[in-house]
Amino acid sequence: MSEHHANYSVFSSVSSKEEALDILLMSYEALSKEQTNWVCNLANASSLLWHAYTALGIKVNWTGFYVTDKENDTELILGPFQGKPACQTIIFGKGVCGTAASTQEIQLVADVDKFPGHIACDGETKSEIVIPIVDLKTKKTLAVIDLDCLELNGFDEIDKKYLGELAKLISASCSF
Amino acid sequence: MSEHHANYSVFSSVSSKEEALDILLMSYEALSKEQTNWVCNLANASSLLWHAYTALGIKVNWTGFYVTDKENDTELILGPFQGKPACQTIIFGKGVCGTAASTQEIQLVADVDKFPGHIACDGETKSEIVIPIVDLKTKKTLAVIDLDCLELNGFDEIDKKYLGELAKLISASCSF
Repeated sequence: MSEHHANYSVFSSVSSKEEALDILLMSYEALSKEQTNWVCNLANASSLLWHAYTALGIKVNWTGFYVTDKENDTELILGPFQGKPACQTIIFGKGVCGTAASTQEIQLVADVDKFPGHIACDGETKSEIVIPIVDLKTKKTLAVIDLDCLELNGFDEIDKKYLGELAKLISASCSF
Repeated sequence: MSEHHANYSVFSSVSSKEEALDILLMSYEALSKEQTNWVCNLANASSLLWHAYTALGIKVNWTGFYVTDKENDTELILGPFQGKPACQTIIFGKGVCGTAASTQEIQLVADVDKFPGHIACDGETKSEIVIPIVDLKTKKTLAVIDLDCLELNGFDEIDKKYLGELAKLISASCSF
């Protein structure tokens, strides 16, 4: 597909969100082929997310992952991401990420200030989407995909659909 | 030190490289306080590196980590980073990262095209610095810090000194 791994982040020619997110899913599959290491795969996935959304003109300020802490499965711990430094741990049920982790339901938040108990790692964040990554066998929450946006209403039903697909690909491809 | 974790990335007022890298070291210590999870700490460290060098006007296109693969200790595997997607694995001794990992010596490369066996994850990279992170007890290579720059001669002796300090802080603070 490309001579250099960095070329997977070329989303500049896309004409629609669907097309960009289709390329993102295909790029993730290519980069995770024969590779089950979750840190490696999520590090590249956070980069794909950053470059896909930035190319779409969506002002993401954070794209990345929190994973269920192996030493305490009632907490999420910071995983690979792109953006500014972030909170190290989040308790299941707290804030947008913790709610997605405990309910296993996608959280689409148009205005984070209206979300009860929102945890602000970055005061500039206005909207957010968090997608649970669930173990297909045990049904436990493995991790969450977290995207923050500097504008209100940064994400919609299309993001829900495609990022839900990404969560399934990650669950199937990674050993956590 | 700051209300939001994202504020640790504010390097905009710095007047010199030494000052920025001093703040980087202090920020890493603050963010890794009472936290030994290596993924969490290296994810925040890659963000600090990106924002410190970008604020200094140094055109970094990749800041992050490769770690010794627990399943094969003759290979490095991709860790947390900021920048475009990257090569998943690097054999010890190969390329700039592999050489730093096998020799445990900092590799300061003014022109990557002149480095024998350079592995190009991104064809745009012109110069690079790679710093080994060594286990203080076993003396084994735990990981490497890798910074790529879009310009020749992107890094110098000051980077060697401060990033060498960061490598020691990481070795002391993280359970790999």
